[in-house]
Amino acid sequence: MEKELLLMLPGPVPMPERVRYAMMRQAINHRSPEFGAVYADCVRVLKTAFGTTNDLFVISGSGTAGMEAAVANFGRDKDIACLVNGKFGERLYKISQRYGKAAEIKSDWGTPLNLDALEERLEQGAQVVTLVHNETSAGIKNPAKEVGRIARKHDALFLMDGITSVGGDVVEADAWGADVAIVGSQKCLAAPPGLAGISVSNRAWERLCKNPPFYLDLAAYKKSAAGKPMETPYTPAVPLFFALREACLIIEEEGMAGRIARHQKMAQAVRAAVNAWGFSLFPKIDAKHEYSNTVTAVSYPQGMKDDEVRPIIKKMGIVIAGGQDHLKGKIFRIGTMGAVSAPEILATLAATQHAIKKTGYKVQGDGVQAACEVLG
Amino acid sequence: MEKELLLMLPGPVPMPERVRYAMMRQAINHRSPEFGAVYADCVRVLKTAFGTTNDLFVISGSGTAGMEAAVANFGRDKDIACLVNGKFGERLYKISQRYGKAAEIKSDWGTPLNLDALEERLEQGAQVVTLVHNETSAGIKNPAKEVGRIARKHDALFLMDGITSVGGDVVEADAWGADVAIVGSQKCLAAPPGLAGISVSNRAWERLCKNPPFYLDLAAYKKSAAGKPMETPYTPAVPLFFALREACLIIEEEGMAGRIARHQKMAQAVRAAVNAWGFSLFPKIDAKHEYSNTVTAVSYPQGMKDDEVRPIIKKMGIVIAGGQDHLKGKIFRIGTMGAVSAPEILATLAATQHAIKKTGYKVQGDGVQAACEVLG
Repeated sequence: MEKELLLMLPGPVPMPERVRYAMMRQAINHRSPEFGAVYADCVRVLKTAFGTTNDLFVISGSGTAGMEAAVANFGRDKDIACLVNGKFGERLYKISQRYGKAAEIKSDWGTPLNLDALEERLEQGAQVVTLVHNETSAGIKNPAKEVGRIARKHDALFLMDGITSVGGDVVEADAWGADVAIVGSQKCLAAPPGLAGISVSNRAWERLCKNPPFYLDLAAYKKSAAGKPMETPYTPAVPLFFALREACLIIEEEGMAGRIARHQKMAQAVRAAVNAWGFSLFPKIDAKHEYSNTVTAVSYPQGMKDDEVRPIIKKMGIVIAGGQDHLKGKIFRIGTMGAVSAPEILATLAATQHAIKKTGYKVQGDGVQAACEVLG
Repeated sequence: MEKELLLMLPGPVPMPERVRYAMMRQAINHRSPEFGAVYADCVRVLKTAFGTTNDLFVISGSGTAGMEAAVANFGRDKDIACLVNGKFGERLYKISQRYGKAAEIKSDWGTPLNLDALEERLEQGAQVVTLVHNETSAGIKNPAKEVGRIARKHDALFLMDGITSVGGDVVEADAWGADVAIVGSQKCLAAPPGLAGISVSNRAWERLCKNPPFYLDLAAYKKSAAGKPMETPYTPAVPLFFALREACLIIEEEGMAGRIARHQKMAQAVRAAVNAWGFSLFPKIDAKHEYSNTVTAVSYPQGMKDDEVRPIIKKMGIVIAGGQDHLKGKIFRIGTMGAVSAPEILATLAATQHAIKKTGYKVQGDGVQAACEVLG
């Protein structure tokens, strides 16, 4: 390959040069004011992206580690209501089963959540609610604000996976009542994989559970973060913190409002192309649910083969995602996360349109032109 | 600061340029043959450093995550005998308390382990033994082979923390009967912090416990590693894997025998200097215990002040470690881990000797000269 593939996935995403080059620094002591300042920069900017003034920590682990930290610290031995309409909702449910009495409130992937059933579970005593805000497996954005309102009404804790929305779409953890919120580094933040940010409300601290996993013990994170210098309880993945800090400074320079508008526009461009082709978006949305602005999931028309289409696109140097689990072969997904802008979108849509035609299918109209009209 | 500080700590340690530069690559898909090959390179070389043909996985987390993976997967609800003669032995004990019925077999930091007490605990039914092979908090190397022999005699599982010995000193996990062994990336491997390697014997797999933390579920690691391409169950910290692969290739080029001999020689040089100064090594060793070859712990003579000595050394651009917890102010520690060679050792000993004199103390002889005689 003459150069790296263009990853148009719902994470990992291409990193700006500044972010990548930040990692090549020599080792520093992680118990030093210098590291403390790096950590503090990350926390300051992430708080704005989360829309929170709560405590916020960075764990050296993937988004899944962040999910588990949320459930283990605040869900152990609790009655947990898990809203599920995709793969990551399922993952939160699986994790919840390891710690508490978990009940799944299940909808088909990419279809609206059953909020009436949530109310029922809460009336029956559920103490904790889990939600994936932006479900990348199905390209749907779930009504976090509404879920937060319902959870608060019943005095339940609200654990929100914002792994693929924070830093790219509107997230207002405090206004929505998300007691715990999580982000992954390699999604909208455009940093490398390997770190998870997690915020914790005072309300959550008051209900902290005993005996979480040692590595994910948030009380230990709190204690170390309060020190001078600010620290993590165990050795952090220092180069990833250097990179995340740089990614955060880029976010600060762009400004969250502009960054969110950019993500929305990129997703609109992809949806315009899909519409022009005469294809269907996979999610079935309603008044409360929206299409994701960080990944667009598209249903393959009858007979069109994923294992024919995506290899043609890849041969042109671009990787888009297929479906996961039972959606394998049924959908394709184009990520619009992080540092992505018009050139990447246009190249991706042109290559996809070409692959569609090359495998013998017709498009109703020119998707690339439709996208240009949004972007130009 | 005109350039980075020289870290002569028991981790993190300076990384070779090749290792650092490997991290600045653009993002790649971690579900790809390319990532699988990176992971496979790491596993191949780490197996030689562990002295094992067992399964071996790399977790995106610190050495502490590796410790917890060992205890959580093989110690839950078990009777665990924890050998403790330093801070990291204590940590394994604390982790063991979260999962099983843990009993501490405690010696003062840096003094020999009580192996008779271990035999007793095993006779009383202990099913799992935990040991820190190289206890950096006290500069002592514990008798892993002997502990393995005793554990096997009583049919107990042997969980060995080799975090600061693997890749720098003799480790023979299979020959010693270490059912689970752990390494940290930022120690003798001279890679960045943030990854832990963990090996698992068949004997351990047969006794796998239910319900480990989701993120540290080794059965999931086994399943993903067996796939084509080789994968991790959750998103790995890809840049750290690039760096670890490069560090592993360097180990392969140097050869483990040469690498171990180099570590031993560097530690000998430090000990020769300490001896020439007329200072005392902190650990109290016996026929079964040895001085660590990856960190040398030295007792401060009466009245010599850590907070006077180490700042002088730091002003010359070099960081050595003080004591941890109750040893704060009582000892100093010089790491000899990873890519370290004569220049770093000589500079460190010269600066330390200068700091000793400058704070008003006399040395009996020239430690720098003594070290040169070992190194030259």
